Amino acid sequence: MAPGALDVVFRDVPVVTSRHRVFDDQFCFLFNSYYEAVGPRHARMDRSLLSRPGIEEISRYRRHVDDAMAASVPRLDPALVELGLQHEEQHQELLLMDIKHVLSVNPLRPTYVPGERYAVAAQPSASPGWLDHNGGLCEIGHVGDGFSFDNEAPRHAVHLVPFSVSERPVTCGQWRAFMDDGGYRRPELWLSGGWATVQTAGWDRPLYWLEDDDQWTQFMLHGPRHVDAGEPVCHVSYYEADAYARWAGERLPTEAEWEVAAADVGHCSSGDVWEWTSSAYLPYPGFRPAVGAIGEYNGKFMVNQHVLRGGSGASAPGHSRVTCRNFFPPAARWAFSGLRLARDR
Amino acid sequence: MAPGALDVVFRDVPVVTSRHRVFDDQFCFLFNSYYEAVGPRHARMDRSLLSRPGIEEISRYRRHVDDAMAASVPRLDPALVELGLQHEEQHQELLLMDIKHVLSVNPLRPTYVPGERYAVAAQPSASPGWLDHNGGLCEIGHVGDGFSFDNEAPRHAVHLVPFSVSERPVTCGQWRAFMDDGGYRRPELWLSGGWATVQTAGWDRPLYWLEDDDQWTQFMLHGPRHVDAGEPVCHVSYYEADAYARWAGERLPTEAEWEVAAADVGHCSSGDVWEWTSSAYLPYPGFRPAVGAIGEYNGKFMVNQHVLRGGSGASAPGHSRVTCRNFFPPAARWAFSGLRLARDR
Amino acid sequence: MAPGALDVVFRDVPVVTSRHRVFDDQFCFLFNSYYEAVGPRHARMDRSLLSRPGIEEISRYRRHVDDAMAASVPRLDPALVELGLQHEEQHQELLLMDIKHVLSVNPLRPTYVPGERYAVAAQPSASPGWLDHNGGLCEIGHVGDGFSFDNEAPRHAVHLVPFSVSERPVTCGQWRAFMDDGGYRRPELWLSGGWATVQTAGWDRPLYWLEDDDQWTQFMLHGPRHVDAGEPVCHVSYYEADAYARWAGERLPTEAEWEVAAADVGHCSSGDVWEWTSSAYLPYPGFRPAVGAIGEYNGKFMVNQHVLRGGSGASAPGHSRVTCRNFFPPAARWAFSGLRLARDR
Amino acid sequence: MAPGALDVVFRDVPVVTSRHRVFDDQFCFLFNSYYEAVGPRHARMDRSLLSRPGIEEISRYRRHVDDAMAASVPRLDPALVELGLQHEEQHQELLLMDIKHVLSVNPLRPTYVPGERYAVAAQPSASPGWLDHNGGLCEIGHVGDGFSFDNEAPRHAVHLVPFSVSERPVTCGQWRAFMDDGGYRRPELWLSGGWATVQTAGWDRPLYWLEDDDQWTQFMLHGPRHVDAGEPVCHVSYYEADAYARWAGERLPTEAEWEVAAADVGHCSSGDVWEWTSSAYLPYPGFRPAVGAIGEYNGKFMVNQHVLRGGSGASAPGHSRVTCRNFFPPAARWAFSGLRLARDR
Repeated sequence: MAPGALDVVFRDVPVVTSRHRVFDDQFCFLFNSYYEAVGPRHARMDRSLLSRPGIEEISRYRRHVDDAMAASVPRLDPALVELGLQHEEQHQELLLMDIKHVLSVNPLRPTYVPGERYAVAAQPSASPGWLDHNGGLCEIGHVGDGFSFDNEAPRHAVHLVPFSVSERPVTCGQWRAFMDDGGYRRPELWLSGGWATVQTAGWDRPLYWLEDDDQWTQFMLHGPRHVDAGEPVCHVSYYEADAYARWAGERLPTEAEWEVAAADVGHCSSGDVWEWTSSAYLPYPGFRPAVGAIGEYNGKFMVNQHVLRGGSGASAPGHSRVTCRNFFPPAARWAFSGLRLARDR
Repeated sequence: MAPGALDVVFRDVPVVTSRHRVFDDQFCFLFNSYYEAVGPRHARMDRSLLSRPGIEEISRYRRHVDDAMAASVPRLDPALVELGLQHEEQHQELLLMDIKHVLSVNPLRPTYVPGERYAVAAQPSASPGWLDHNGGLCEIGHVGDGFSFDNEAPRHAVHLVPFSVSERPVTCGQWRAFMDDGGYRRPELWLSGGWATVQTAGWDRPLYWLEDDDQWTQFMLHGPRHVDAGEPVCHVSYYEADAYARWAGERLPTEAEWEVAAADVGHCSSGDVWEWTSSAYLPYPGFRPAVGAIGEYNGKFMVNQHVLRGGSGASAPGHSRVTCRNFFPPAARWAFSGLRLARDR
Repeated sequence: MAPGALDVVFRDVPVVTSRHRVFDDQFCFLFNSYYEAVGPRHARMDRSLLSRPGIEEISRYRRHVDDAMAASVPRLDPALVELGLQHEEQHQELLLMDIKHVLSVNPLRPTYVPGERYAVAAQPSASPGWLDHNGGLCEIGHVGDGFSFDNEAPRHAVHLVPFSVSERPVTCGQWRAFMDDGGYRRPELWLSGGWATVQTAGWDRPLYWLEDDDQWTQFMLHGPRHVDAGEPVCHVSYYEADAYARWAGERLPTEAEWEVAAADVGHCSSGDVWEWTSSAYLPYPGFRPAVGAIGEYNGKFMVNQHVLRGGSGASAPGHSRVTCRNFFPPAARWAFSGLRLARDR
Repeated sequence: MAPGALDVVFRDVPVVTSRHRVFDDQFCFLFNSYYEAVGPRHARMDRSLLSRPGIEEISRYRRHVDDAMAASVPRLDPALVELGLQHEEQHQELLLMDIKHVLSVNPLRPTYVPGERYAVAAQPSASPGWLDHNGGLCEIGHVGDGFSFDNEAPRHAVHLVPFSVSERPVTCGQWRAFMDDGGYRRPELWLSGGWATVQTAGWDRPLYWLEDDDQWTQFMLHGPRHVDAGEPVCHVSYYEADAYARWAGERLPTEAEWEVAAADVGHCSSGDVWEWTSSAYLPYPGFRPAVGAIGEYNGKFMVNQHVLRGGSGASAPGHSRVTCRNFFPPAARWAFSGLRLARDR
């Protein structure tokens, strides 16, 4: 998921409605997160040095934008409005990811919310079964009138060998078994880049796990909490997911396998964690990015990332689709990311 | 192409023939390039600090290994011998890559060979045509008795949309047009990671190109030479190949497209440059790496790399196959790498 | 000047008065800037990730400390109170340095204060004369009942050759002449480490100077302002000061020369800028740091820094003394630092 | 000691004798180690990529230079010849430092020489006494007809408080006691920069010490050897020397103290190890560097370094003088550097 594009729509407002008044010329520079087409921008590294504008001016800017949006929406292309809303939902999950990370490194361990709103549910303790699929010529990708991001299209045929995917994501209890079996200390389980990261970053557990008097806890948006063996493991990287699958004698599903299996059962996941797939994030056959700044939004990140499917407890309700393609670099762990196993039949 | 595995076979010699005598116990540590299964190894960064063993001892070691190999080959598994030879051929191309690079940064601009042995041939000046393919369900990958590396198997079905690939690689003359049109200065042509590399590394031409009194020359293994507009461009990264294709209004072929088109015409390329494809380097369906150190040779690099197809003027004669998969990270330029365009029909 | 020791005194409060109540146990970790004796601390690099405690809790903490201080001061050792206040004055100047820096990198160029409170005064346009001194056996360093920091003692004899120091600091107009004469482009003027910094950091003017339509402006705490040729140059590093002096055919004074010359005229500087000396920051003969955390305050920084003397427009009124030793690394520019020339007689 | 200036004299040869023929124009670029006045140079970082010129050409170059020197010496200014020879002696010690370092990181642990030529002698086991000095007005620095480097002049007066210096350098046995007492784990013993280096570099013993089955050995130019408790400790940094002195309740001598004490007893050290002093490497009053490239040789390094006095077993016989000033940055350990203690009387 590409960070930072809220203002694509805002910025296009003046194009659609000539009555729009720019709040501050310099904000275009200051709040341009990564759009080359929009012009120069403040260096990302130096953002932490920004102490201004102050909170009052930010609030006024927010109201200014809200007012402009409210006035403009009736005149805007509804497809553009929907893209803006969907994209805003992506930002809301990214904000929760960032908030969780930044609170987790604060030695005061502050909490974001009092309740367990973003916690994931424990699963039935019985071992999950396998969803079998006969493979063959299948279709994946979005088609039709409903909303989708550009990277979900066009719908196209893929040929699959017969395969099975697990009914449920890998749990924390299973991950504990991987750890106890030396999973983080055995190079033969890892991709070369993954093993290098294990060593330089000192990985020996999922992000946010803490060992406390022989008890495993994990930092949550509502504070530290016991690790429940039955809940899906979360905040693992692609490298870790891949190593786990190799340790388990299975593999990760491709995104095509994931999608056709999910379409079969009619839903897109447990909804608890995004699930890593073994597919690199690449354009579908015939993919064409949109023209202008909106076109930078997905296509230019199609290298060195892997696709995740499904959705998480921090995703906006109704946000995800069976065709939805999330993506992160293979070492990223701060997304709400877990995994599901697959195997050849 | 993964660097450094010559001694896989050497190391297995003692397993096969108990008469093998180890030359020096510590060489196992010193010359282990990256095999985790073989044990610890000298840090790569510190290799340039090694002044010993001296050249005489290295020569004796070489003779020792040659003698052991000559004595062992009749008793070795012929498949293992063939893998060793094929792998040695990969090293020979890698050595030429490294020699070219290290000579190029020497201000004395020394030459490796006097003649033009590794130069590429200029092509017919007429514009290349397109090889059309109807797509549909095709098969790619190695099958049968001939040699292949493990990553070329198993042969499997892929579904392709109708496409065309250019008859010939992109030339230096075409690349000059890309440069003259601001190709290296227009962010909209580049993947995000590519544009970042352009800026940090200061890319504005292929590796080894030098501008000299308004003339373009390139550093070759036989020294600097005029850039011929008709020869295939070489030493460009995936990022550059991808940007060029976008600038040209075309795209790179997938590795499946490349392979079925090459199979159609019965050969695997002009043989001048390895050709970048848009496919990430990933395992084929059903791929299983070999057991032991040999299994580290390909599988553990299957992330953050792109596939190249064909072969170069520095490849050993007869080395390449239509199913052969070379691979490098998207910013790598020191391979003999060029590109061929493709488009949807 | 060593950053960050406000809480030396706060932390010692419990020692003196048993009634002190700790506000929050974790703040001891969170706000420990660099005191090893006080225990572990939050990594400096990660400070910008701290979003909590919030402003209300910080305000309550501030009131808590203020109340505890007010209640404790009558019972505290007056010497300790004075050290705390003097040290707090150092922090106030450091805060102004940091505020100026952080506002200067904000593209909105916000101002800290409306007026010119921290601006330096222009000087008489006549060339400054030289204060001559016959050298010989002199004494420097603090002695007597008045306050001083530990690094100013003990008073001791030094032997000086006859010398002169300029009556006034180097001005912006003189610095312009240095720039115009290629001062930042001529390696023969620079210390080796200074020249390396010029090249890597791209120095070609004092910090905060901006060129705008052939006019030089400088960023001030009250916003950008014209560079006045007659005012002392400010925000130059030791490397720059040293290069300027070499260019001018003079040299920087030692701290002993500076102090005896200042003592002669009865004041410690123009008060506009701290003045670099050629003296490394080292302990005086017989120097002994205090026991405990207070002892970390000065002594442990006595390497790789140079002494500045005098005081700046951002120093608290009455803060400086003729014996006062400020210190920064040779590449530091964000202090209010200028220079005065010296020569042998 | 500044690395790399052998060719100052060589380069000046053409100036003195018009018959000199330049061997290769490009060598001036290739072998310019750091002289800005001589022109551009090959980047230091990239030196390990240089494989040419080959050993035969280097040998021919060497003979060319030797011949030119032999022919020129009779016509050269004898003072320049002496400077060249003295400087060459510095290089010879630097070469031994580099050879020792590069062999020490080779896992084969090769030896440079078979015998113990560069080993230091064990000292009498009796505790050393103290050499007392009454201080007062003393003179240091070179004067007279004998050779000295420019940084040793001019001779000048310094005022010293009464002090004592130890008769002998600190031994390995004493250093073991420091280590056993947690010397490398107690921040209160260290300068701030030293403690940071201890942590990032993982220092817990002198450079080249190895622990082997509870025995301490050290890597020497003739290979690993038992650490003798009675020999002077070697290969410790200024940071370590300073921490040791603090631990021992003493201090390091200033360079002035060292020199006047050495002059008293009539020799300049045991000759086993260079001895760190607490003095920063700065110009003496009235110091003027020579004009031209020779002037870059010492003066431009006068910042962020500390002075060492004496000489080591790797110094050329007769090289050192009681006024000789060697210098290295405070974290450098690869020089043959130890320490001697001092105290106020």
